[in-house]
Amino acid sequence: MKKHNYSAGPCILPQEVFEKSAQAILDFNHSGLSILEISHRSKDFVAVMEEARALVLELLGLEGKGYQALFLQGGASLEFLMVPYNLMNINGKAAYLDTGTWANNAIKEAKLFGETVIVASSKDQNYNHIPVDYTIPEDADYFHCTSNNTIFGTQMKSFPKTNVPVVCDMSSDIFSRTLDFTQFDLIYAGAQKNMGAAGATLVVVKEEILGKTGRTIPSILDYQKHIKAESMYNTPSVFAVYTCLLTLQWLKKQGGIAAIEKINEAKANLLYSEIDRNTLFKGTSAVADRSFMNATFLLENPELQESFDKMWKEAGISGITGHRSVGGYRASMYNALPMESVQVLVDVMREFESVFSDQSQLAQ
Amino acid sequence: MKKHNYSAGPCILPQEVFEKSAQAILDFNHSGLSILEISHRSKDFVAVMEEARALVLELLGLEGKGYQALFLQGGASLEFLMVPYNLMNINGKAAYLDTGTWANNAIKEAKLFGETVIVASSKDQNYNHIPVDYTIPEDADYFHCTSNNTIFGTQMKSFPKTNVPVVCDMSSDIFSRTLDFTQFDLIYAGAQKNMGAAGATLVVVKEEILGKTGRTIPSILDYQKHIKAESMYNTPSVFAVYTCLLTLQWLKKQGGIAAIEKINEAKANLLYSEIDRNTLFKGTSAVADRSFMNATFLLENPELQESFDKMWKEAGISGITGHRSVGGYRASMYNALPMESVQVLVDVMREFESVFSDQSQLAQ
Repeated sequence: MKKHNYSAGPCILPQEVFEKSAQAILDFNHSGLSILEISHRSKDFVAVMEEARALVLELLGLEGKGYQALFLQGGASLEFLMVPYNLMNINGKAAYLDTGTWANNAIKEAKLFGETVIVASSKDQNYNHIPVDYTIPEDADYFHCTSNNTIFGTQMKSFPKTNVPVVCDMSSDIFSRTLDFTQFDLIYAGAQKNMGAAGATLVVVKEEILGKTGRTIPSILDYQKHIKAESMYNTPSVFAVYTCLLTLQWLKKQGGIAAIEKINEAKANLLYSEIDRNTLFKGTSAVADRSFMNATFLLENPELQESFDKMWKEAGISGITGHRSVGGYRASMYNALPMESVQVLVDVMREFESVFSDQSQLAQ
Repeated sequence: MKKHNYSAGPCILPQEVFEKSAQAILDFNHSGLSILEISHRSKDFVAVMEEARALVLELLGLEGKGYQALFLQGGASLEFLMVPYNLMNINGKAAYLDTGTWANNAIKEAKLFGETVIVASSKDQNYNHIPVDYTIPEDADYFHCTSNNTIFGTQMKSFPKTNVPVVCDMSSDIFSRTLDFTQFDLIYAGAQKNMGAAGATLVVVKEEILGKTGRTIPSILDYQKHIKAESMYNTPSVFAVYTCLLTLQWLKKQGGIAAIEKINEAKANLLYSEIDRNTLFKGTSAVADRSFMNATFLLENPELQESFDKMWKEAGISGITGHRSVGGYRASMYNALPMESVQVLVDVMREFESVFSDQSQLAQ
């Protein structure tokens, strides 16, 4: 039976990425060699890296605007450390917006480097919304935010205007919606949501913000060294980078970010409409801040959990169990999840209501 | 035509690793899902990680001896940084043996943390041998060495006895030869030689040496945090770890390290015998320190390079061009390279001699 994969990440990728990457393991570019056994300095892989880096800037509309794209390793968690190492001055100050678990982990690493101001937090309401009306200190070395909060199902719909460099962790919604990406000075994202296999990290950085801290940066953490080495300072995560290239090529064929955004909106609207309409469910995050990537929702009557779980599993759905911090359900609708899968989930929710709405009322 | 892949890394892996990993991309464990789209917290992947970690300790003979195996990201180059962060005391001292490019890169990162003593170096002879007769300061926090030098074709055949913790970068010869691995307190290795796809880094560490520096360690660089999280502190490089498991399973089926060591010795002896016998070639590294993984050699008459290159390429050989630091040729004979491939190279060298030995003498 076809699976409807709602995993929060690593997650579904386009079917052609699975097929082409499996083929490349058996025979890459008709070379008679596997992509797993060729040198990262070989002509064939250098071409992969160059095309992937160029496609990132093209799809984000950042070509010729002073940005560099890098494919590094270590996930967003290593970027939590690289950002302050590269951007926080000695005796400097950084500003962070606290919108959830990952923002917190970023803040924790920054605190090792200097004054870390939390400009706002929604922690006291279990991160069910994005804070507004905060002030970013004008003397901060940078402002850091998380565009989408996978765990809590919230997403920043706009970003503050500020004169300090803006750093954004876009791990879970990069390439999913149109934005003016020039408002960011540094964007980073683990590959394993909308980009490719786990093991690669995308960093897009405006070169002019680098090299200004007076800090000695370990070589492996120094963005300038990675730029100079054309993203080959050390052996890259070859296969993961190749899957990113295949996914970016697929996205371009779909019509780029603008085209996929329309589909993502339609998928999210379909599911959120059902969450709001269905008497047995309720959403967990503020309506205005709902994530179009990760929809979090609860049963009105938690005693029906076992029955609902049985029903969606029988429909071939996988990966919608919620994170322990929120409970309930989380449906992750990344770029590669087809509309058909969302329809299947909505149908299950409707069927569930038709069977169990009486029981739910009795229990209440 | 079958390729004989002598790439220095990423490099040849066992054929069954290519086949099984390609299959897992299309359908992992008959789950109907690709290994690229499942959660790293899923039962199936947790089992992969656990088995891989256990197999590492089993194959190295380190089970039940206080060691932990971790699969991290960032390559050996990130370990160059993590080692001093985790092991060098504040106002402490570390001792390094300088045997080549990678040792140097490790030394560079350590210098940011405290006094870094280079106990010996073979730099003045272009790293063509492993230094002997050096003293490791008894008050060093650790001693660091590189077991095999891919670029220069040298390999440490024994390791110094010392009371300070011994850290060894085994990136290019791990799992290739029997050693008493309990003499090491920390071993690390990028996956892309004898272990699996680029993108995973193996760290094997004796737990009791950790947590003693008084230093605040960023979370993502803290071995203790990675151990506590069972190598899942953040999303691991899922696919690369899976290829490591497949390669370790293959190695176990071959009879483990002792069995592969015999084959590696036979391969190295076959090639080095030919380098020494053949009048047109000469080895570059000291005979006693010759690497069984990477054989470096030169043409006696460099003017014959074009003719030799033509001949080995026609035989289906790839990847034996030497590193620019040494020139000439480098034949990397990692675990998965079959004896047959070495025989093909030796045959080419013999044929080359039979055709060109007159010309070579004329030129000299």
